[in-house]
Amino acid sequence: MSVLRIALAQVDLVVGDLDGNCAMVRDRVRQAAAAGAQLVVFPEMTLTGYPPEDLVLRRSFRRASCAALTALATDLAAAGHGGLGVVVGYLDTDGGPRNAAAFLQDGQVVARYFKHHLPNYGVFDEDRYFKAGDQLTVVRFGDLDIGLTICEDVWQDGGPFAAAAVAEVGLLVNINGSPYERNKDDVRLTLLQRRAVEARSAVVYVNQCGGQDELVFDGDSFVVDADGTLLARAPQFTEGLYLVELDLPVSTGNTATRAGELAVARYRAPLPPVPVTGPLAEPLGIAERVPDEAEVWGALVTGTRDYAVKNGFSSVVLGMSGGIDSAVVAAIAADAIGGENVYGVALPSDYSSEHSLSDAVQLAANLGAPLQTVPIAPMVSAFVESLKLTGLAEENVQARVRGTTLMALSNQHGHLVLATGNKSELSVGYSTIYGDAVGGFAPIKDVPKTLVWQLARWRNAEAVRRGEQPPIPENSISKPPSAELRPGQLDTDSLPDYELLDRILALYVDSDAGFDDLLAAGFDEELVTRVARMTDAAEWKRRQYPPGPKISLKAFGKDRRLPITNRWREHGPAAD
Amino acid sequence: MSVLRIALAQVDLVVGDLDGNCAMVRDRVRQAAAAGAQLVVFPEMTLTGYPPEDLVLRRSFRRASCAALTALATDLAAAGHGGLGVVVGYLDTDGGPRNAAAFLQDGQVVARYFKHHLPNYGVFDEDRYFKAGDQLTVVRFGDLDIGLTICEDVWQDGGPFAAAAVAEVGLLVNINGSPYERNKDDVRLTLLQRRAVEARSAVVYVNQCGGQDELVFDGDSFVVDADGTLLARAPQFTEGLYLVELDLPVSTGNTATRAGELAVARYRAPLPPVPVTGPLAEPLGIAERVPDEAEVWGALVTGTRDYAVKNGFSSVVLGMSGGIDSAVVAAIAADAIGGENVYGVALPSDYSSEHSLSDAVQLAANLGAPLQTVPIAPMVSAFVESLKLTGLAEENVQARVRGTTLMALSNQHGHLVLATGNKSELSVGYSTIYGDAVGGFAPIKDVPKTLVWQLARWRNAEAVRRGEQPPIPENSISKPPSAELRPGQLDTDSLPDYELLDRILALYVDSDAGFDDLLAAGFDEELVTRVARMTDAAEWKRRQYPPGPKISLKAFGKDRRLPITNRWREHGPAAD
Repeated sequence: MSVLRIALAQVDLVVGDLDGNCAMVRDRVRQAAAAGAQLVVFPEMTLTGYPPEDLVLRRSFRRASCAALTALATDLAAAGHGGLGVVVGYLDTDGGPRNAAAFLQDGQVVARYFKHHLPNYGVFDEDRYFKAGDQLTVVRFGDLDIGLTICEDVWQDGGPFAAAAVAEVGLLVNINGSPYERNKDDVRLTLLQRRAVEARSAVVYVNQCGGQDELVFDGDSFVVDADGTLLARAPQFTEGLYLVELDLPVSTGNTATRAGELAVARYRAPLPPVPVTGPLAEPLGIAERVPDEAEVWGALVTGTRDYAVKNGFSSVVLGMSGGIDSAVVAAIAADAIGGENVYGVALPSDYSSEHSLSDAVQLAANLGAPLQTVPIAPMVSAFVESLKLTGLAEENVQARVRGTTLMALSNQHGHLVLATGNKSELSVGYSTIYGDAVGGFAPIKDVPKTLVWQLARWRNAEAVRRGEQPPIPENSISKPPSAELRPGQLDTDSLPDYELLDRILALYVDSDAGFDDLLAAGFDEELVTRVARMTDAAEWKRRQYPPGPKISLKAFGKDRRLPITNRWREHGPAAD
Repeated sequence: MSVLRIALAQVDLVVGDLDGNCAMVRDRVRQAAAAGAQLVVFPEMTLTGYPPEDLVLRRSFRRASCAALTALATDLAAAGHGGLGVVVGYLDTDGGPRNAAAFLQDGQVVARYFKHHLPNYGVFDEDRYFKAGDQLTVVRFGDLDIGLTICEDVWQDGGPFAAAAVAEVGLLVNINGSPYERNKDDVRLTLLQRRAVEARSAVVYVNQCGGQDELVFDGDSFVVDADGTLLARAPQFTEGLYLVELDLPVSTGNTATRAGELAVARYRAPLPPVPVTGPLAEPLGIAERVPDEAEVWGALVTGTRDYAVKNGFSSVVLGMSGGIDSAVVAAIAADAIGGENVYGVALPSDYSSEHSLSDAVQLAANLGAPLQTVPIAPMVSAFVESLKLTGLAEENVQARVRGTTLMALSNQHGHLVLATGNKSELSVGYSTIYGDAVGGFAPIKDVPKTLVWQLARWRNAEAVRRGEQPPIPENSISKPPSAELRPGQLDTDSLPDYELLDRILALYVDSDAGFDDLLAAGFDEELVTRVARMTDAAEWKRRQYPPGPKISLKAFGKDRRLPITNRWREHGPAAD
């Protein structure tokens, strides 16, 4: 057996920022070297960021990725870190675009691995971009044999994990760009434990941590040994360099004889000795799992912060209606970029209740957020009088005057506009396009209304636990929800009770359930038909909705690709 | 040799409308029978419409497609058309979702074929949905052997066309959902001619005709003989049942012996005799090719008409600014649904020139379109005064007041709002989100500004040729373009000359060109950098833009999937 000190680089990446991502790698390698690490492992597509989408189709970008890899190897050696083994993800061009991992040492690209299994479901389009690999790469690092794998390789049977068992590797590295979904962390761990046993090898799983448009990466990097025991686990949504020390079996010399069929063997100089240094040298324990609400909150804050920051915004603006949705969005934004950077706008109309303003004032005070009040009556009257509007047209003009006001303040002051719609509303189309739907980012787009309330209660309780002011006004949580577009209006005038609605939507939207499935789940026929109709009819509005962080199995966006022009309607039992 | 009379059903489909599509098939088969056809061929995924996108993931939908196929076979026989061979596309579930073709006769599903090559590039995501087939299906129809293939099968080497040569079929049927792109018709024909020679078989190519969200199908169905000679070709963008008579070699009996490896052979009763009936029995000649502008115009009119009609709209509303973009959009809409259903709104501001109103009035008069004038000053003043707006924020408020006005009129009267932006503007972000960008559909979204002018001139000349009133006011074509958001503003204040801009965008947007490619094409370094920066920065706005018909190699929409959060910038030569 031989001891190996490994640094898991659970880092944030920026898509397209080859220079910035390489600089981050150099910093983290320097830090790892100071902590006595011998091997540093970065996430999938470290240099390009993930997912680079159609940038992969651009020759200039592919070339730049390959050039950046070579330069990085040279730079690391020049900085005196040539002795470390460094695993990074990048875009290769060998025989076609490749989702690749490289092992760097002594200024060289020692070995390359091309991802075998390319996901092409959910939010993933990897068959669009990459040519699949078909060989396991094994690096002989000192007296150890280390196999390289990438993300989806672990989710499919066969492929490199099966090959690794035959090749008798001592360690498998799996680098990831694995987006957050509720409960996915449990699935990942169980799966990796099974793969470790199959491969008869310890596995180091490293995932990135940060937001990229609609995706949030939660990190959750961990290490399991060859019998599947969890040895170490990093916290979710927390960037860092996490150290582990593994006692690994030395090479059986087997890979060389089997090279060509299953494995590419590479030979390296012995490892340098492990120096022991300061606090960073503290090995990673097993981070505690947090409650579901904390996990979701972490995803929403990370997604919102990274969308704003990576797109050059230091402040946001949103309408504060006194309702629960805008209160939760404001609290997320405050946790993401600081309450003082969250600009609230109260936009009262003649139909606004008294508490709508007082609750907004309290919210802003709780967050330390600046609040401005803009009565919408003058603008609304100008439209209603010019156009002789009535009914729905008049209701929608109120929402659109609010949207135009927020956009004008964004144009004037450079804030990012946040849309405050939740997944339940977005599903059934209970929102006004170009009205409350305006914005650059929509933090709770994938959060059902019932979970919005749950998150509000959790966040307030969390504040109490920390001895802080609960951010969300109690009245915003407890009052019945209303769009306040006409006197005395309540959401329940148009929609079923949210508890019921969200249970139907979880099946119809998130799980592709049909009419029969919904009846079998015990829902009323008329209600199912109504909810399905409303959801189908709102597709065109969803297409024009801003992006927001995915937290569910199926978020609106590239996760769910339904036609707008679509006459399919769920109805009575289909003939078999 | 044996004569076969075939009806090419170049028809329009509606996604999700199994009942409607089956009814259309029954009507067309009845019509084909009356015309003495022995074989009727429908397009890819006839029953479900194409592309059904994530409806394929719904079990209820998959089941309904299979049930509809069986019912259709029964219904055709019950209507007395059992003797005809009918080829339809549908969604099968055998071993996974399949993009399938069925051969129906005598009330039975005689044979099934599963598409081999699944496109997963451009607008296509078929690896997401379907399991690929790996067997060629050959139907013995009387004394003929007929092979079935689907769309992409013809675009890839190997697969069913290679198998067909070995199986010695007399006829190959290729059913399509092949979206229109400029110049694609020439590519298709050349390709099919090559495949016919390779397969040593005549080929009947049938494509659908109509619009589905961002896609337009142009039909362009045709027949080539075994040495690649074009025998018949249907006009583009014209629904119809087109008859051909082919003299085909009788079966060599070969397919039976090779069944299992290459082919599934099926045996059918002899063909019924061919009755000769009325005008429908006239065989298809070779339809003349039309000029590029006519082809594009056909695509835009078809896409706009079908989006409106299939989504239940009988009227549209748009802002008529007197400029070229709104004039062309209005003319397209008038050709699609009739000028009397095109509601124009002139929305003058203090900065509007005199001709903006007079040109709009003339346009409306030319089209027979109702025109309403709504001065925007009262609404704009209300915003500017309430919010103390200046500069860009004030300019954008004008555009947003116009957008809100159009949406209010849509809400009040039920019109579909058309957005009037062109591809050049959309590329460089020269539009106001929630302002001129509002709408349910954007007819010239994929049309570069220079082509907008070209189309206007062509459409006017076409009117003259037909002895009609040219629809587009000459002044709208000849005056310099301006957004008229401040006094004396011209597009050229902010943008390069459109001739130059469009040539850069054709490379940067449509062809994934990088900085080096653009310099090699002779463009100025500073200009390339500026155009690329503007294009990159507008990604977030494009995501919220309405859908519009694809006419180019790479339309904005699912054809071009770039991240919003993206720090990649085209710059100086990358290291090699």
